[in-house]
Amino acid sequence: MTNIQNDKNYDFLDKFARDAKQAARKFSHLKSNEKNNALNRMAEALIDKMEMILAANAIDVKNAQQKKLAPALLDRLVLNSERLNNMAKAIHEVAELPDPVGDISNVRIRPNGLQVGRMRIPLGVIAMIYEARPNVTSDAAALCLKAGNAVILRGGSEAFQTNTAIIKILHQALESCHLPTAAITFIPTTERDAMVELLKLDQYIDLVIPRGGEGLIRFVAENSRIPVIKHYKGICHLYVDEDANLNIAMNLLIDGKLSRPGVCNALETLLVHEKIAENFLKTAGDLLKNQGVEIRGCQRTSQILPFAKIATDDDYATEYLGLIISVKVVNDMDEAIDHIGKFGSNHTEVIVTDHLPAAQRFIREVHSSVVAVNASSRFSDGGELGLGAEIGISTTKLHAYGPMGLEALTTQKFVLLGEGQTRHEIKTILNK
Amino acid sequence: MTNIQNDKNYDFLDKFARDAKQAARKFSHLKSNEKNNALNRMAEALIDKMEMILAANAIDVKNAQQKKLAPALLDRLVLNSERLNNMAKAIHEVAELPDPVGDISNVRIRPNGLQVGRMRIPLGVIAMIYEARPNVTSDAAALCLKAGNAVILRGGSEAFQTNTAIIKILHQALESCHLPTAAITFIPTTERDAMVELLKLDQYIDLVIPRGGEGLIRFVAENSRIPVIKHYKGICHLYVDEDANLNIAMNLLIDGKLSRPGVCNALETLLVHEKIAENFLKTAGDLLKNQGVEIRGCQRTSQILPFAKIATDDDYATEYLGLIISVKVVNDMDEAIDHIGKFGSNHTEVIVTDHLPAAQRFIREVHSSVVAVNASSRFSDGGELGLGAEIGISTTKLHAYGPMGLEALTTQKFVLLGEGQTRHEIKTILNK
Repeated sequence: MTNIQNDKNYDFLDKFARDAKQAARKFSHLKSNEKNNALNRMAEALIDKMEMILAANAIDVKNAQQKKLAPALLDRLVLNSERLNNMAKAIHEVAELPDPVGDISNVRIRPNGLQVGRMRIPLGVIAMIYEARPNVTSDAAALCLKAGNAVILRGGSEAFQTNTAIIKILHQALESCHLPTAAITFIPTTERDAMVELLKLDQYIDLVIPRGGEGLIRFVAENSRIPVIKHYKGICHLYVDEDANLNIAMNLLIDGKLSRPGVCNALETLLVHEKIAENFLKTAGDLLKNQGVEIRGCQRTSQILPFAKIATDDDYATEYLGLIISVKVVNDMDEAIDHIGKFGSNHTEVIVTDHLPAAQRFIREVHSSVVAVNASSRFSDGGELGLGAEIGISTTKLHAYGPMGLEALTTQKFVLLGEGQTRHEIKTILNK
Repeated sequence: MTNIQNDKNYDFLDKFARDAKQAARKFSHLKSNEKNNALNRMAEALIDKMEMILAANAIDVKNAQQKKLAPALLDRLVLNSERLNNMAKAIHEVAELPDPVGDISNVRIRPNGLQVGRMRIPLGVIAMIYEARPNVTSDAAALCLKAGNAVILRGGSEAFQTNTAIIKILHQALESCHLPTAAITFIPTTERDAMVELLKLDQYIDLVIPRGGEGLIRFVAENSRIPVIKHYKGICHLYVDEDANLNIAMNLLIDGKLSRPGVCNALETLLVHEKIAENFLKTAGDLLKNQGVEIRGCQRTSQILPFAKIATDDDYATEYLGLIISVKVVNDMDEAIDHIGKFGSNHTEVIVTDHLPAAQRFIREVHSSVVAVNASSRFSDGGELGLGAEIGISTTKLHAYGPMGLEALTTQKFVLLGEGQTRHEIKTILNK
């Protein structure tokens, strides 16, 4: 398991996925305390074996430096004792979350006395395909197992030694609980061809979640026979309505654009109602400029802020992930909603308004996965929304939409409890 | 719109899908009574223009007869005034159903005072790809529109004239309500190449639901870039436990196998605990034989029922859809659950037992989309389970699992209501 398979024969993937499915069946009916115990052991093992992980990580980091990996990517790759403690803490926190499996809801009695309810069950086998961050390895394993699933992990080549070490330690923890290690299956190669083969195994794998750059996600979506939950980018809009509280608007702009510009729930576009545009943009423009933010605006923006560059359609469609913002002055909410429909990415949109009908209309007509009134786009996050933890964010509407917690790793089956009910009368069936 | 496009240029599909997306946006925020009014007009129009539909249907039926279409398929194709009345009635019934769109649930207050809830919204554009039955045209249109979606319909070549006539009439009804006809978009060609092009339009279409034979469904699943909800087959099992009430077991066997053998929730396999096998199978075997049902059983079955043929693994994996049943005597529930895991299709499984721990275990460990205790498999149906109507049955776990009603044609977005909350303190952000 620790070496890359160098031949081009990927038959082993079939066995890996089959074993994962077998392990998923075992995990699907473990009791919560059995799962929590395994998770806590996994967390403890990461701390106990910290030296082994840091040694493996040092090899990856050295390789990455030699390959001149971009500083941002290198930063994601590096582990230290603080980061490992946080990874362990995150697993303990998942163990503390309520277990969604087995919940029965919507129980109704049909006219014939039949009880019909819906019971939450695990999805089965979930494949995570991700890039540099080694913490995804332990986070994804903990979330998938807690929801009663098995997980197949395919990490990036930069973190290969680190991931291999983490997996070895997690497997020891599972073994100490007499649980199948195939519940956390690690793909011991990062070749694209192997990923393509993996994405064909829809008889074993129930869901694929890619996490990483848009290129990786498109590649997975186009090559997968298995359902994919995807999130291409976050082009989040802040719309400042004519009836906005401008102090709130300014705070949400600062929090949304400046608190962490490199994440997907950061703001990329500011839409301002023409009636308050001059007043608001003058203050906002100076503040953004002083904070080193480049402004790309429409013609009307540049009349108010002469230092603003002119924005193109490409700008409005770009996730900057940095200190640039697109700005547009709109005639009314129609134009704001149209702009979001044309350039948005179904991630998160915010309206600032004190006018109730405007808030109601924005909520009704904007169909992004998170729609906020007078609250920062930065709350668009599983932890902040009360999901406890987040396995990813979906910007497509099937199965899950928006930040995904444990519940998104489950589905619901119908459960029927009867006393011998039949749909047709037996005598009639036999005599027909 | 009424003629097949004979050139091989399918660029028109792009425009069709774009128009459908535009119409979906309109339908997504119609009020319930506007949607219901449109549905009722559609139903009335089918009755008013019955002669036109029957004339078109006569052409399809004549063509089908000349092509020697199988009698079962021909029967599905034929319309008459009774069937058209039922189609209209079905639309009126959908109009009467509660509207799922706009429901807000799970509203919680976060520690910072932010209100977080989930609001049900339409999926957007749904493509239905189906075969001979013309009633799918009106049923699917009614269900998709009621849930605030647009629908793209691609019916089978056998029903082309009939579908064209139905669509024309439904469009007139929409026009009379000043609603965009693109909300019901009909693909005016049945060529497979056109379907392949349609299945690439993931920028406009949110979901594909194929209904028909396994070949069609596999073709759609393998060629689609759009998420597909699929149901390959229904191999439903009845497991008669050692503690079963054998009268109930007999009734569920009769209802499940004989009331309508050609449907997907009919029984295909009977599993019998060895302790009651001889007693139950002697009576059941005679009854099935008298009703013309061929029995294919394991060795132990044939010792009890000498007239039974020996079942192969292929038999256990076959959806007979007719008067044949597979039978197996099992040592215990483990073997029954393993058999279902190996040969089942995640559709519907039934246990007959009076022993509570057995019922609990079967419910916990069998992860088919419908699991029933002491109730017929034939209840596995949207109407019977209280969903009001059914757009299809999903046997894959993503998004929907089991019979799908209006709710399965929607998703949930997060809605946040704040009073200016930010994730980080503004002063800290500006001074960092």
